[in-house]
Amino acid sequence: KTWDMNYLEAAIYLEEGENNDKFDSHPRNHNALPAYLLTHNHWFYTLDLAASLILLLLALMENPAISVFEHVPIGVHGSIELLGLALLGISIAMQMRWLGWRTFIKHKRSMVKSVTWIMMVLEALAVLARNTTHFRVTRSLRPIFLVDNRYLGGVRRLLRQILQSLPPILEVLALLLFTLLIFAVFGFYLFSSNEKDPYFETFYHACISLYVLLTTANYPDVMMPAYANNKWSALFFIAYLSITLYFITNLMLAIVFVEFSNIEKEKFRKLLLHKREACQHAFQLLITNSHPNRVTYKNFQGLMHHYKPKASRKYVYLLFKVLNRSKSGFLNLKEFYGFYDALEFRWYHAKEKNPWFAEVWEPFNTICHLNLKLVKSRGFRILVYVVIVISALILLVRTVLMSLNSETPQTLHITWDQLACIIFYIVEIFLKLFAYGLEDYFASGWNVFDFLVTAASVGGILAQNFGTAFFYVVILRPLRLLRLLRVRQRYRDIFQTFAILLPRIGSTVIVIFIIYYFFAIVGMECFSMYDMKNCCKNTTVEQFYKADNTTIYNNYYYLNNFDTLLISGVTLFELTVVNNWFIIMEGYASVSGEWSRLYFMIFYLVMMVVLAIVVAFVIEAFTFRMKYNEAFQHDSKESENIKTNIRITREELDYMYSGEKSLRMLQDYTSELNGNEDTYFVGIRKRTKFVLQRRMYSELISSWLREHSQTSASCSYQ
Amino acid sequence: KTWDMNYLEAAIYLEEGENNDKFDSHPRNHNALPAYLLTHNHWFYTLDLAASLILLLLALMENPAISVFEHVPIGVHGSIELLGLALLGISIAMQMRWLGWRTFIKHKRSMVKSVTWIMMVLEALAVLARNTTHFRVTRSLRPIFLVDNRYLGGVRRLLRQILQSLPPILEVLALLLFTLLIFAVFGFYLFSSNEKDPYFETFYHACISLYVLLTTANYPDVMMPAYANNKWSALFFIAYLSITLYFITNLMLAIVFVEFSNIEKEKFRKLLLHKREACQHAFQLLITNSHPNRVTYKNFQGLMHHYKPKASRKYVYLLFKVLNRSKSGFLNLKEFYGFYDALEFRWYHAKEKNPWFAEVWEPFNTICHLNLKLVKSRGFRILVYVVIVISALILLVRTVLMSLNSETPQTLHITWDQLACIIFYIVEIFLKLFAYGLEDYFASGWNVFDFLVTAASVGGILAQNFGTAFFYVVILRPLRLLRLLRVRQRYRDIFQTFAILLPRIGSTVIVIFIIYYFFAIVGMECFSMYDMKNCCKNTTVEQFYKADNTTIYNNYYYLNNFDTLLISGVTLFELTVVNNWFIIMEGYASVSGEWSRLYFMIFYLVMMVVLAIVVAFVIEAFTFRMKYNEAFQHDSKESENIKTNIRITREELDYMYSGEKSLRMLQDYTSELNGNEDTYFVGIRKRTKFVLQRRMYSELISSWLREHSQTSASCSYQ
Ligand code: NA
Ligand code: NA
Repeated sequence: KTWDMNYLEAAIYLEEGENNDKFDSHPRNHNALPAYLLTHNHWFYTLDLAASLILLLLALMENPAISVFEHVPIGVHGSIELLGLALLGISIAMQMRWLGWRTFIKHKRSMVKSVTWIMMVLEALAVLARNTTHFRVTRSLRPIFLVDNRYLGGVRRLLRQILQSLPPILEVLALLLFTLLIFAVFGFYLFSSNEKDPYFETFYHACISLYVLLTTANYPDVMMPAYANNKWSALFFIAYLSITLYFITNLMLAIVFVEFSNIEKEKFRKLLLHKREACQHAFQLLITNSHPNRVTYKNFQGLMHHYKPKASRKYVYLLFKVLNRSKSGFLNLKEFYGFYDALEFRWYHAKEKNPWFAEVWEPFNTICHLNLKLVKSRGFRILVYVVIVISALILLVRTVLMSLNSETPQTLHITWDQLACIIFYIVEIFLKLFAYGLEDYFASGWNVFDFLVTAASVGGILAQNFGTAFFYVVILRPLRLLRLLRVRQRYRDIFQTFAILLPRIGSTVIVIFIIYYFFAIVGMECFSMYDMKNCCKNTTVEQFYKADNTTIYNNYYYLNNFDTLLISGVTLFELTVVNNWFIIMEGYASVSGEWSRLYFMIFYLVMMVVLAIVVAFVIEAFTFRMKYNEAFQHDSKESENIKTNIRITREELDYMYSGEKSLRMLQDYTSELNGNEDTYFVGIRKRTKFVLQRRMYSELISSWLREHSQTSASCSYQ
Repeated sequence: KTWDMNYLEAAIYLEEGENNDKFDSHPRNHNALPAYLLTHNHWFYTLDLAASLILLLLALMENPAISVFEHVPIGVHGSIELLGLALLGISIAMQMRWLGWRTFIKHKRSMVKSVTWIMMVLEALAVLARNTTHFRVTRSLRPIFLVDNRYLGGVRRLLRQILQSLPPILEVLALLLFTLLIFAVFGFYLFSSNEKDPYFETFYHACISLYVLLTTANYPDVMMPAYANNKWSALFFIAYLSITLYFITNLMLAIVFVEFSNIEKEKFRKLLLHKREACQHAFQLLITNSHPNRVTYKNFQGLMHHYKPKASRKYVYLLFKVLNRSKSGFLNLKEFYGFYDALEFRWYHAKEKNPWFAEVWEPFNTICHLNLKLVKSRGFRILVYVVIVISALILLVRTVLMSLNSETPQTLHITWDQLACIIFYIVEIFLKLFAYGLEDYFASGWNVFDFLVTAASVGGILAQNFGTAFFYVVILRPLRLLRLLRVRQRYRDIFQTFAILLPRIGSTVIVIFIIYYFFAIVGMECFSMYDMKNCCKNTTVEQFYKADNTTIYNNYYYLNNFDTLLISGVTLFELTVVNNWFIIMEGYASVSGEWSRLYFMIFYLVMMVVLAIVVAFVIEAFTFRMKYNEAFQHDSKESENIKTNIRITREELDYMYSGEKSLRMLQDYTSELNGNEDTYFVGIRKRTKFVLQRRMYSELISSWLREHSQTSASCSYQ
């Protein structure tokens, strides 16, 4: 076997370690490597993603289409569907090629994807052949292709966590259902004899009413007929809500939180051990028989040539140096375990940074120094905050006055105070730009925020001739108030936690999007043919659907329908918020039949589970962050970064830049040159949750590694 | 000083340690001891509690009174009020006597109570003199006396925890208000030009609408006029709800949970150190100059004579034995620290317990053995569960059939299957009684539950001639299903956590009761004069208050009022559940004025904070329990008790019972006598949360004690 193949396979193992791929999906032999390499690159991932998205977006064009696509022929979106499916088919075929069909059949996710693909291809062909759409609820399964995309690993992990959190949730849901049934029997016997009570008319109605009461959506309405009949019946509802809403629901939240925390810790453990195993596999491929316990720099370079082809020689050398803590010139296994962490470092010349105006002539130099002192002063900062607050107060006062004088916002125009504020902000930005220089100024997220808001404000002022002062006044002025949140430590904690949560929030939004897509397609297939205007005569919800003018205020509930994909999404969001969801359910139950309740009740349960998990991970992230701050109190004073220092000799510096021809690299070399003396580099990497977890669970990690080495001592390598 | 006084003061210190009283409220000298002793006994606590409760219950008699007390003269409840206040005044005077007026003035709670008492006495006198009630909102402060009662320490601790959790909650509420204001300005500019949109008509209406939208109570209604005008306006509401409901609200829950967990741990630390300090104080009072590091049994007896006057000689001796781990015959300080834990032990003779029928003649003995084997068998247990399930299924099927045939429950009567079930349950109880004996049978809570339900069932059967089969069928039969919850480990965990939470739940119910009482009194004073029937013409909530018969189903919202204390309580519960709370608020705003909104909004905020803390402690209790089970996995297989064994010689046994004359004690002596050999006693105490916390935080406790000994090394004793 050649070294180049070893480098390539080692790089594949390391990538599988980073992506948390099981090693059983590793290419089964060297002949399968080309198929693996073809499908494991960014171009292919992007194509795969594009195909998935095109398939999803077809729902806007298919019947019932949004108005702009109303007249697109079936042949057009049918053909686009086949094209997208063909692109996805290539991905499936390639995966079968590098896995082997036996492993492919055993791989659950691949099989689900393949079976769905086959069903969809057959259905798409049938649609094209018959040139008509029929009941096509399988369109709701299209998100499967999106989930399987390489870029959506976070979504898959979240979905797996949701599935792992299900058993305890189902047990508590069983307890909830058990309680509901007892109370439904009880309520039917208690209240069904009341002629004026529609909620407990039958046992079925009692169950429906109490199911909706779990969400509080029909309270106190569900109680009022019984309460009018006998005041003591309030006790029935107080008991039911106390047990279900205040005890069992909180209990479920607690169970989900604890289960989620355990899964989070277990996930960290598995990822840690998985990354170590990847390093072990890669290490075995990089050593020689003569030196079985160390990796040379030459072999490390070969690995990096495949793992990060675009990495510079300098980057690779610094990476090797930061890994080689023993300074032996070779990497042992223990040092190689630090590979993933070291990759995160970004390198800067450690030279003390002079201001950009250091070499500018006097008296400009003095002016710049004074300006820097001014900009960094506390007084200047307070002045900026005062201007922001005054600006906001003026906006508030103007809004209140406008409201009191019954003026309409269409009479808006730019006023002197708004111009004064904008001029002040422009001056502030210029002063800071002059003080810090372009690069340092835009290194801060807050400065970028300020610059963008101010630039948009100027655009808003210039555009006022077209009547869009509204946009500047209403959106841009209040945005500046967000800068005030930097002041309090609590709010900075919130931003810190939000930053850690951001990838998870992104995955959650996608998961919710997928659930909405599934239910929206099913909802459109089942309900889009009904007109809800003036429906539901002689029901408790009749008033909400009236479209005549007998009442002063319309409720407009007939707009909560499933006419198009987007309108379905809004309707599903209303069902997610849960309040008055039962009015929409009663409407469709009255119009399309009692079975439609199943759709609404299942959606409620699905979203309740997902939202419980969302609450769980917000609490878990915040709890972990605050416990970490407690345990390592000195860290909370540090920034969000980890730093390390590397000393580079003149010879090493020359080596790092040898072979470089670009002007940019030569400029770097010149600035980093320090005569014949050593040069120092600073490596900075972000303090991710993985890093925090490793710090927090350091004692547990020792025991995990001990157990793991015992169980994998018999494991051999190819 | 005499020894007796030392024993008494040591007992007082130990009681203050147990009740977590600050030592600065210790009697200031021996002359103040009689006042202290008079007010620190159960009779006085009970009298104090009764006076507080009488004061609270007067609200049922005062205007607006419940119907049965409608015509009670003002002189009657005015006099009762003065009597109750007089009883409470005695308590205040006595406390001033044993604290000294200087300490009394500094004691914040006592001053609040005294000032309130003075105000109420003056007001009660004015009511009697003028013989008319006026605006008496100070009645709402009556719960202050209840909270200050010695028996309600748990309530005071919970209130303190709520106050300690307030700062972070207020910070997040500020963020919520900040977001609301930005969106209100935004919404006013966006939607106020829509004639058909009442929700954003003015800036004030925009704020109200978005405040209510925080509770989701007016969604999607608040969105529908804008949605009808332009579908994209849905994005405004989705953004607002995503930020406030799904991010900031969950954030607040996380902050409250973390803050609450910290307070819980800090509370445990303080209580631990406080109890140790109490032991130190008491220990100093029990030692002699000749033996400065040990307490003799004689002095320990003297202490127990004051601390637990009713304790038997046997109890005191066993207590001393379990404390004296070194078996030296004297207690050192370290052993004395175990005082509070040792108090919890209940002592049993460790003799192997024979069945009660051990000495019964054959063949009854054999039959009883077989019966015991049968009752303990798995098949018998399964049979009981099967009968419970079948009985429940028959009830469910009968209910469904009755519902389908439109029968009314008034035609209920006892059927053969119900009789069969009752006979089966009676036989089950008798078999178990014969198997275990009376005492052991009723030792299990589940057996007590079974016995009570079956006895009530028999009563229900016998009472069927009076038409109350309903009670048996509807309430008692489903109750048996609760036995099935014993089967699953998860549900047993839930019961375990519920048992730990029970005292806290009791305190919470009282805190909520106090809040309800305060707001109910204020609500009655402000709103009881309004008639809500057919009110609110030309508002968005007009339909809910209609009492005519133009619609088929009445909403009956005019019943949600403040006519009496009990009706106010139901209305406040509806506001607590939050759904449709704004309909009640809009009604009163329309009828009594816009200022009334303040009452409803403040109540919502108060209950939101309290419920957030309720959620926090349910999650914290469950999290702690499950983490404890993880950390000490062998413990979860143990029962809920801690056991210890004590060996007692014949001489010690004789000593323990010397001086006893009662037949009962002589019987105990005879049964515990074991010839001239040693007798063994088993001590059993409950595994409380305090015990679990001490196990869990054992490492932290070491550092706490180290810090505390450094800070209190200079502390001296009287
Ligand atoms: Na509602
Ligand atoms: Na609601």
